Amino acid sequence: MEPTLDVVGVGNAIVDVISTVDDDFITAHSLNKGAMTLIDADRATSLYAAMPPGIEASGGSAANTMAGLASLGSRSAYLGKVRDDQLGEVFIHDLRAAGVGFDVDAGADGPPTARCLIQVTPDAERTMNTFLGISAFLSPNDIDDSLVASAAITYCEGYLWDMDIAKEAIRGAMAVAAEAGRTVSLTLSDSFCVDRHRDEWLELLADKVDLVFANEAEICALFETEDFDSAADQIAQLVEVSALTRSAAGSVVVRGDERIVVAAAAVDAVVDATGAGDLYASGFLHGLANGADLARCAELGGIAAGEIISHIGARPHVGLASLV
Amino acid sequence: MEPTLDVVGVGNAIVDVISTVDDDFITAHSLNKGAMTLIDADRATSLYAAMPPGIEASGGSAANTMAGLASLGSRSAYLGKVRDDQLGEVFIHDLRAAGVGFDVDAGADGPPTARCLIQVTPDAERTMNTFLGISAFLSPNDIDDSLVASAAITYCEGYLWDMDIAKEAIRGAMAVAAEAGRTVSLTLSDSFCVDRHRDEWLELLADKVDLVFANEAEICALFETEDFDSAADQIAQLVEVSALTRSAAGSVVVRGDERIVVAAAAVDAVVDATGAGDLYASGFLHGLANGADLARCAELGGIAAGEIISHIGARPHVGLASLV
Repeated sequence: MEPTLDVVGVGNAIVDVISTVDDDFITAHSLNKGAMTLIDADRATSLYAAMPPGIEASGGSAANTMAGLASLGSRSAYLGKVRDDQLGEVFIHDLRAAGVGFDVDAGADGPPTARCLIQVTPDAERTMNTFLGISAFLSPNDIDDSLVASAAITYCEGYLWDMDIAKEAIRGAMAVAAEAGRTVSLTLSDSFCVDRHRDEWLELLADKVDLVFANEAEICALFETEDFDSAADQIAQLVEVSALTRSAAGSVVVRGDERIVVAAAAVDAVVDATGAGDLYASGFLHGLANGADLARCAELGGIAAGEIISHIGARPHVGLASLV
Repeated sequence: MEPTLDVVGVGNAIVDVISTVDDDFITAHSLNKGAMTLIDADRATSLYAAMPPGIEASGGSAANTMAGLASLGSRSAYLGKVRDDQLGEVFIHDLRAAGVGFDVDAGADGPPTARCLIQVTPDAERTMNTFLGISAFLSPNDIDDSLVASAAITYCEGYLWDMDIAKEAIRGAMAVAAEAGRTVSLTLSDSFCVDRHRDEWLELLADKVDLVFANEAEICALFETEDFDSAADQIAQLVEVSALTRSAAGSVVVRGDERIVVAAAAVDAVVDATGAGDLYASGFLHGLANGADLARCAELGGIAAGEIISHIGARPHVGLASLV
């Protein structure tokens, strides 16, 4: 059956709380600069109390990617879990208003909607501290099999792997997609996340994943090497297509023996790196859904990432379709 | 007794929900462009559903002014009412993190924290639609008399006048300030607000207010004239000092026969007018609290307003003290 959807994303549904800080703040609060660290409710309260005034904006890695896809004109939908609270309302609104299909019921009890406390430093790097709340309880029951089967590509977030029930949900979604003959994609999300799940992921990538997204730190962490080229050679053995991002150095698409190197888009001023990888995936997947070659997919990824890092927040401020 | 605080602000405690839209959106939803319109819960739900993706940021006119004062280095505090919900938590955090004293208990029941649905159009004008929620239930019990008496200036928001109980709270605060020999200040807030309360306000201004803030539309609405100079002459009869803003044309300070005209600060690009008047008041009150002459007060107002209109949102993005 022809897919009726281009991409369905599965991930942690999160509202970002973003403050700009100096590097002293990172040091004083022992934050893991540039990484995503999971925090509990108590730590979320104390860290928030210490943060300067901020703004709130919908986030969540795969949700950002789906919003970017919709902004580019692709048909996208999202699976993730929020509570029926004010932040959940914001998350649902922003995703639907972006044109992304999102029909998962908001939970009537349990922990609150997830939030990520983000510190943006003067170098535009973002440091993320996530209180997962109800997002981590995404379960196989929340996966709409017919929705997954209807999408040409199923895109899963590695971040979800930290909770067993969410992991089951992802495995279920991947199985449905494979059964329907669709493309299964995974983003490695974070190098510390890779460290936590290396063995399981190596197996998952080899057996279940057709397209992987990773940045340099993540792909090197996966193979416990500091040599990017070696990591690229190793992932080529496991996955059909790998899109590997290298920040300002652009990206490298790996398919068998092919290495397609694409420069990053020119950006006037990098303000906030949050969402760079997510939006790269938007552009890449948009290209793929529209039959572009891999070089063009990577180029589209770079353009979408370039827009997102030019402002605070991980959702597009302009219609991305106008940029490509 | 010497004041231990420079300014205490009294106002509607609101979280802003900000989207950029084109002018067609304003027309299609019959919005009152450039004004503040009160909306009920149902209208808030339907209008929010129609709005594009947005960001959330603490707002509230007097709260913005107090945040600006703290950013300039003045000692400020705030009286306003939020619920113990997620938006209330955001509002409290942002105000305290800005350095503003805020100790009003969050309500454990009643309507939710207020939100203002703001549409920013390409001309940088903002159109505000406020669901007052619990903020309108600020009552005389919420006014800490000793706090008010300790502040050199009590600054009240005209917006509060729409609810009888909040009006009583303001009248109470003004009486305490006057009794303690402090300066009583009022901002007229909005020309439609002026239309709703003209007679009461003319009396209030004449009897209770030492310093009034208004923009051109508001002061003209107060005296039902289209002639700014005539309005200035009339307010001079009622209030000791009036700070009248005229957008890009700067501001005019009126004291008796004096008319002090001060140019607006140069701004590279006006992005979002939200908070311009609030931050003008910050700068002006900061000058006053530090013994500056009226021309310098107006100049400081222009500088603070210039920062706020250069970005989305009504709270400063940089330490204002570094700009003056």
